[in-house]
Amino acid sequence: MAARMILTVTPNAALDVTYRVDTLRRGGTHRVGDVHTRAGGKGVNVADVLTQLGEPVQATGLADDVLRTRLPGFVPIAGPSRRTVTVVSDEEATLFNEPGPQISAWEWAALLTEFDLLAARADVVVLCGSLPPGVPVDGYAQLIRRSPAPVILDTDGEPLRQGLAAGPALIKPNLDELTRLLGRKPDLPADCAQLGVPVAATLGAKGACLSTSDGAWLACPPAVTGNATGAGDAFTAALARGLRLGTPWPDLLADAVALSAAAVCAPVAGTFDDPTYRRLAGLITVREA
Amino acid sequence: MAARMILTVTPNAALDVTYRVDTLRRGGTHRVGDVHTRAGGKGVNVADVLTQLGEPVQATGLADDVLRTRLPGFVPIAGPSRRTVTVVSDEEATLFNEPGPQISAWEWAALLTEFDLLAARADVVVLCGSLPPGVPVDGYAQLIRRSPAPVILDTDGEPLRQGLAAGPALIKPNLDELTRLLGRKPDLPADCAQLGVPVAATLGAKGACLSTSDGAWLACPPAVTGNATGAGDAFTAALARGLRLGTPWPDLLADAVALSAAAVCAPVAGTFDDPTYRRLAGLITVREA
Repeated sequence: MAARMILTVTPNAALDVTYRVDTLRRGGTHRVGDVHTRAGGKGVNVADVLTQLGEPVQATGLADDVLRTRLPGFVPIAGPSRRTVTVVSDEEATLFNEPGPQISAWEWAALLTEFDLLAARADVVVLCGSLPPGVPVDGYAQLIRRSPAPVILDTDGEPLRQGLAAGPALIKPNLDELTRLLGRKPDLPADCAQLGVPVAATLGAKGACLSTSDGAWLACPPAVTGNATGAGDAFTAALARGLRLGTPWPDLLADAVALSAAAVCAPVAGTFDDPTYRRLAGLITVREA
Repeated sequence: MAARMILTVTPNAALDVTYRVDTLRRGGTHRVGDVHTRAGGKGVNVADVLTQLGEPVQATGLADDVLRTRLPGFVPIAGPSRRTVTVVSDEEATLFNEPGPQISAWEWAALLTEFDLLAARADVVVLCGSLPPGVPVDGYAQLIRRSPAPVILDTDGEPLRQGLAAGPALIKPNLDELTRLLGRKPDLPADCAQLGVPVAATLGAKGACLSTSDGAWLACPPAVTGNATGAGDAFTAALARGLRLGTPWPDLLADAVALSAAAVCAPVAGTFDDPTYRRLAGLITVREA
């Protein structure tokens, strides 16, 4: 019998493309010196971080044939999968996110079938990112209802709203996503308590807030500088491992904040800086909120 | 026997991707509303313009499988073919050009074989654009020496310099390319006369200069506003048609300047605005230089 694992699902997987340029000039023509590509999308990043942590993990989702050369476990689509283009100069990183390909009803049905197969072996399921056009807006709600394992939901907008109603084990909004969900600037942690499920809200440089029926906690990381892209995915990876191991809530929050800060110190999404993670592991202060 | 035609060769064909955004913010994250793609590269654009003109044309070059769904006449490469990304906002267009894929010796050899087959039926050959990594820097020179038909060469840098030595029928540099070729700001048309082959140099809004052993001419277009991307390719298309028909040099120059201006009035590379072209056809003044 195959070993148990954490399952991440990325319906809108992407090819992350990075262009390095000297200076980004609006209205200019740029000869791109260096083109770097990697398979991306939140769930792919979460799986990469879990792999670096040594956790058993499997990633699935929807991907075209080009992307499936890098994501062989994904369900094929007629495609084309979306790309994200990040233009990196010495000054800053500028991102362009394509919306994603049109998904047919049978492609979505194929993902449901694959999900049932894999989720039967999952200790924790993580549902990640946007839904591409054509996937029912209650797509994540469908997966949560089918899942035999607890589900962490990391998405935005209506898929988050409908997913919430299906009772995930934990949601992981950032401040913008939480604001959109509530329809106003959140009062933390009070507003989270009203959502009916545990909420781990990331607050950028201010750390994170965890609200559960057992209590609420705040954790603040030391200041780190680097690339915040993918920090939220490292946070989610830590939540998935903690849920799988039954880590107590405050320890889980501290670990997620430390791993997230260590991801900021790593240059690429889906990775974290191991020395930073080990250094921060004992240093995160968690207080009841 | 298959009909005779104009052959365009694009060793570094591209997928031209256009992202529409409201405003380009340096350092920002942009959700791209509309993604438009088309097969591109100079020779593809030249062939598209010739098709719109009703001229018999065939396009070949090197392309990966994704691009070959749109360019079936191209020789397959392991790829991936390069992309060009144009970010269009209301204010301006910002371009990012990837360098192109690594081409193997046998992929280049396959293009030579295909070229021999097609060039035997060509009245005029047009060699267009950059050479991707791996193609010998004398790649265009090789094609010029093999060609049974007169060759128009539209490229830059060392491929232009080496191609020139192989004796093309005509080269079509823009002012930047001519400056790089000469190593200094050109004195027109005197400097062109020293290059040993006919030169049709495009000068942006100032029109174009044609230098041949029969004489030299300058032509200036009326002011037009629009998208200059692809205007040079329309210019080259007119040169190819004129060479095929044996159009006298001054008439050929006037026609190329008119078609180029009509391309500025069209929104996409590879097309021209037909009413503008017909309106300008009699209005271009050509003077001896």
